[in-house]
Amino acid sequence: MINPIALHNNKLLILDQTRLPGNEVYIEVECVDILVDSINRLAIRGAPLLGIAAAYGFFIGVSEYDGNDYAGFRNKCRRIKELIESTRPTAVNLSRSLNQLLNLVDEMKGRSIQEIKDSLLNKAKSIHETDRLLCEAIGEIGNSLVPNNASILTHCNAGALATGGIGTALGVIVKAHQAGKKVHVYVDETRPLLQGARLTTWELQQHHIPMTLITDNMAASLMKRKRIDLVIVGADRIASNGDTANKIGTYSLAVLCAFHKVPLYIAAPETTFDLSIENGDQIPIEMRDGTEIIHCAGKPVAPSGTNTYSPAFDVTPNDLIQAIITEKGIIEPPFDENIKTIFNLES
Amino acid sequence: MINPIALHNNKLLILDQTRLPGNEVYIEVECVDILVDSINRLAIRGAPLLGIAAAYGFFIGVSEYDGNDYAGFRNKCRRIKELIESTRPTAVNLSRSLNQLLNLVDEMKGRSIQEIKDSLLNKAKSIHETDRLLCEAIGEIGNSLVPNNASILTHCNAGALATGGIGTALGVIVKAHQAGKKVHVYVDETRPLLQGARLTTWELQQHHIPMTLITDNMAASLMKRKRIDLVIVGADRIASNGDTANKIGTYSLAVLCAFHKVPLYIAAPETTFDLSIENGDQIPIEMRDGTEIIHCAGKPVAPSGTNTYSPAFDVTPNDLIQAIITEKGIIEPPFDENIKTIFNLES
Repeated sequence: MINPIALHNNKLLILDQTRLPGNEVYIEVECVDILVDSINRLAIRGAPLLGIAAAYGFFIGVSEYDGNDYAGFRNKCRRIKELIESTRPTAVNLSRSLNQLLNLVDEMKGRSIQEIKDSLLNKAKSIHETDRLLCEAIGEIGNSLVPNNASILTHCNAGALATGGIGTALGVIVKAHQAGKKVHVYVDETRPLLQGARLTTWELQQHHIPMTLITDNMAASLMKRKRIDLVIVGADRIASNGDTANKIGTYSLAVLCAFHKVPLYIAAPETTFDLSIENGDQIPIEMRDGTEIIHCAGKPVAPSGTNTYSPAFDVTPNDLIQAIITEKGIIEPPFDENIKTIFNLES
Repeated sequence: MINPIALHNNKLLILDQTRLPGNEVYIEVECVDILVDSINRLAIRGAPLLGIAAAYGFFIGVSEYDGNDYAGFRNKCRRIKELIESTRPTAVNLSRSLNQLLNLVDEMKGRSIQEIKDSLLNKAKSIHETDRLLCEAIGEIGNSLVPNNASILTHCNAGALATGGIGTALGVIVKAHQAGKKVHVYVDETRPLLQGARLTTWELQQHHIPMTLITDNMAASLMKRKRIDLVIVGADRIASNGDTANKIGTYSLAVLCAFHKVPLYIAAPETTFDLSIENGDQIPIEMRDGTEIIHCAGKPVAPSGTNTYSPAFDVTPNDLIQAIITEKGIIEPPFDENIKTIFNLES
């Protein structure tokens, strides 16, 4: 059982993903600053998991407030929310969780601070448990799209290490495997931070799912040889029209899929949709520090002072996406219509 | 002046490219086994440079023969040729050089062994000097395709470190820069062995050409933002119809170019063409050891025992290539016709 985040004796523990696969080390999150640092350096990552971590982190941060004054507590809540929100801008799950918690604080105005704190912890636990169930549902629903003997390519890590459950994209693969289907997974290593090489391979090994690791630039060669039947990835933010931000390299894969007529599926819960924006152009793209490119596995590989360009994400336009797998069902084009319908919004 | 291979006081020195950019260390090639090892571990690489190294290596290997018997010497020559040819199968320059030298041995039957050895050394020097001139010509001719203020993407290393001169793809860029054009180069890091990050950046720094290093999976994102005007790469083998084998990831770029309507140019001398084969399906593709993927900059990044797929090259079909830049001129489609014409072969 892979557990990237856990409450243990009222202490929040997070698995330091920068040290995988070599070392399974948990960080004790004693204060919100430790969480913020862990998010910034990707010790904890993955859009749904960031939503969970943000909720627990909010609780830990506001717990420091030891007064009984609601206005003072509300002020503390706002500052903690801003602090956690300032970490990573692209995944919408993070701010969505924080908004839910701050709304709860507003709704509970008049109750004791301790009661509010208790409710915030319960809400964080509920967000965590809900995500576990969402992964189960996405996995079950997505399994219907996976043929027997499928050769599936995935990018980055959208597994247990990115969620509160079995994962989104990897959840689909795990469910297909558990259903007795023969599957083979090609894992993009996912430069610069190698989440595919380090994390996805590690998860697949634990599930005993056959896999092959490749560098990102080998996917096209496999598609040309007709060795990829479908591509499944997760998402960091999906706009109202289906445009999807995900780990850098996803758009590249999407173009390769279109060229080779390989279906590209996005697997993500409703919490990853941002229906406040019309399209992908409105998704903020985090730029990472160039040292992540100049270094490889912690060692410098390019001359010092080399200029870099390092977006953490790219946006795949909806017309390159075959379908989006959610806990409510599979969304097919036209995405703008069908996204509204599935989430019961007015068209 | 970048010099990846040099004769110095009758000793062959090769720059150990695995140690760049951190260390400039030359290996003294005292015997053919040192050369074979250096080629296998990519201490020396690049199709034209492999042709030069093979020629010098052949001379060094057959020089060990200290008899006066032509048949014995011819036999030694054949064995040395096979030994060097067994290293890397894809770049055609290697076997082309070796064939030239063995033909010379055949032509000189009846002359003294010492005379033949002297001629072999002169032939190796001539192959080296010729390649320097070919690079100059390719650079000058290719420069005509580079607009002022061009933003150019390149993959792997097709520069001085891959040739006997200023390079093929990089030669074009260097000539455009020297002609006073403003150019900016986006350098694909080129996993798994990072020739872009380690070698191309290092060369561009020495020429003071502005550049930006990216991971291979970021190229699509740049093209989508219309930040790439053209892509220029080298080649390891070009078939009669223009299909081109080059470093893994080139085909991926070619598909991205087609999708984004960015022209893809191949820069290569006639020595990289293999007119004995009709198309790219007939080009042997070298498979590399998986440790190159499981490790990054010498450190393990994936769980041990991870299965890998690691072709060193891919083949770009001719219909994705805008033009091939050679020392004889620019070849445009239809490639099968125009390749024959430019090299004065019967159609």
